[in-house]
Amino acid sequence: MKNPLLVGRAIRAQLEHEVPQDLPLERDFREDSDYTITDHVQELHRSLCKDPRTLELITSLVSHLHAFARETQLTHAEWTKAVKFLTRAGKESTDYKNEFVLLSDCMGLSALVDEINHPKPPGCTDGCEPGPFYTEDAPTLPSGSSLAKPGTTGESMVFIGSVKNLKGEGIKDATVDVWQADGDGVYDIQYPDREEPNDRGKILANPDGTFSYRGILPTAYPIPSDGPTGELLHALGRHPHRASHIHFTVKAPGYDDLTTALYPSHSPFLGTDPVFATKRSLICQLTEERDPARWAELGFKEGEVRGGRVWVWKYDFVLPTVEQVEQLKRARAQKSKQ
Amino acid sequence: MKNPLLVGRAIRAQLEHEVPQDLPLERDFREDSDYTITDHVQELHRSLCKDPRTLELITSLVSHLHAFARETQLTHAEWTKAVKFLTRAGKESTDYKNEFVLLSDCMGLSALVDEINHPKPPGCTDGCEPGPFYTEDAPTLPSGSSLAKPGTTGESMVFIGSVKNLKGEGIKDATVDVWQADGDGVYDIQYPDREEPNDRGKILANPDGTFSYRGILPTAYPIPSDGPTGELLHALGRHPHRASHIHFTVKAPGYDDLTTALYPSHSPFLGTDPVFATKRSLICQLTEERDPARWAELGFKEGEVRGGRVWVWKYDFVLPTVEQVEQLKRARAQKSKQ
Repeated sequence: MKNPLLVGRAIRAQLEHEVPQDLPLERDFREDSDYTITDHVQELHRSLCKDPRTLELITSLVSHLHAFARETQLTHAEWTKAVKFLTRAGKESTDYKNEFVLLSDCMGLSALVDEINHPKPPGCTDGCEPGPFYTEDAPTLPSGSSLAKPGTTGESMVFIGSVKNLKGEGIKDATVDVWQADGDGVYDIQYPDREEPNDRGKILANPDGTFSYRGILPTAYPIPSDGPTGELLHALGRHPHRASHIHFTVKAPGYDDLTTALYPSHSPFLGTDPVFATKRSLICQLTEERDPARWAELGFKEGEVRGGRVWVWKYDFVLPTVEQVEQLKRARAQKSKQ
Repeated sequence: MKNPLLVGRAIRAQLEHEVPQDLPLERDFREDSDYTITDHVQELHRSLCKDPRTLELITSLVSHLHAFARETQLTHAEWTKAVKFLTRAGKESTDYKNEFVLLSDCMGLSALVDEINHPKPPGCTDGCEPGPFYTEDAPTLPSGSSLAKPGTTGESMVFIGSVKNLKGEGIKDATVDVWQADGDGVYDIQYPDREEPNDRGKILANPDGTFSYRGILPTAYPIPSDGPTGELLHALGRHPHRASHIHFTVKAPGYDDLTTALYPSHSPFLGTDPVFATKRSLICQLTEERDPARWAELGFKEGEVRGGRVWVWKYDFVLPTVEQVEQLKRARAQKSKQ
């Protein structure tokens, strides 16, 4: 290999350390033959790749990328456009706005990966991705607390919920991590003058699994659409607006963590959610409480409720056990290999 | 929609211009049901996307990305790794080294796109991608010229070729654009002190399609492997070294442009080429000419040949007509829709 007639100086300098294996080029590969470029790529990987999972991933990826190109008879101009698009997606990504995460979200891939990793038996609350607005600094609070600081924009709301298992029993020692936008559709961390957490908290449920909190009815807001993902949505005739929602991560010992979001049925964009997180099972019918005597019972102070109503939002979360989820994952993995 | 209870201020500011359509959320979508996230994404696009080709591309892409995730039961950790990998690929790309082009090359996708866009009837010379080293400034030269400046590193070579059609007839008015590395595996533009083109030229073939040029036998060199693509190759057990080759773009009026490369059979890495461009049909058996009297006949000057030999490299390029290629493309497009 050190014959200078065979390899140039960049390779000669490396071959002290590495002598790559070569394979016979037994057949030519071309479209419309029984041995195509795809067969050749897969054969190379089967011959050289030592890690079974890496081989499994690359084999499936190559097979699907090639099938995509063949199905669409992808033109060279389209390929060039895709290369430029992906390059820009990388260049324009920041720690707070990753365009590949947004692309994955907008193609439903993130939702699918979530379902694959947290399969739910029928009857359990559906999950969805956490999105980019979770923070670690939310206060831990007893059930019945208020999560909204005085002066937070929006209408008053009380959320009344419970954490149950598939038998309908309340689960002990559950925590309900909540984070949400305010009545302007803005998260606390999006305000430049944020000093401490607002509209978020880790609520300790009661021993019977019930919990509640007082807060602000959230409104709808757009995902970032000033980059390549926004352009793709536009080309597809789609909008970037998420329906109004509250994020939750519910945890309890012995049960699979549930990360999800709930949506008020009055919100627009439920059927055209840009990240495919608005399943019908997560949509809630809210009611209004207009009786000031009831406001006090719900924990609101004198004069705290403006506009003459409190929105009442009720939901029971149903969690699978860790073992139920592991069983489902094993069954799915086996099925995917068939 | 301007009800502040429904949408936050970011959306209120936009809705003057845009009122996005909403769709009924008729069914929940989940794995193991007859209506999955994939169905929901595709239904949304069918409802909203107005451009047929964009719809075709996104539908195929979503279908294959989702199938990839299901087949492999993609973990959240793997998804996160992929997002970081792709983000780095964008950030580390430069005008001279695009990581997405390299990734596409190394997964055989570039070769496939080339075959899709330039299908060849049997008997025609196979094509391959041009790579990143083509320049516009190569001189136009008559057949028989030397492409290598005096002092170029490497062994002397003469290339003797012709441009023919499928009937075996020499094609008139053919040009053969050549670019290649030198005997160190280095292109002229990789030398910081390059003043003018070397080891490249646009050769005007003779009226009967024959042509020749004198030059330098190229050696093997690696594709850039200091970025994410290099890491992927390493994880797959692959090397970045391309076999020795000469690039050609052959053009003639009425015929489909042919971009390809030829390889000497003595080169290593023929069977493990990182960009899948080394088809067996493009590998040539070279001979040696050791008779100084023959060197002069081949156009070499007194004392120009060092090392006691000239490598003789022969190949006949066979081009399809534009109409033959268009016919194949139409047939393939029709087949891909079935």
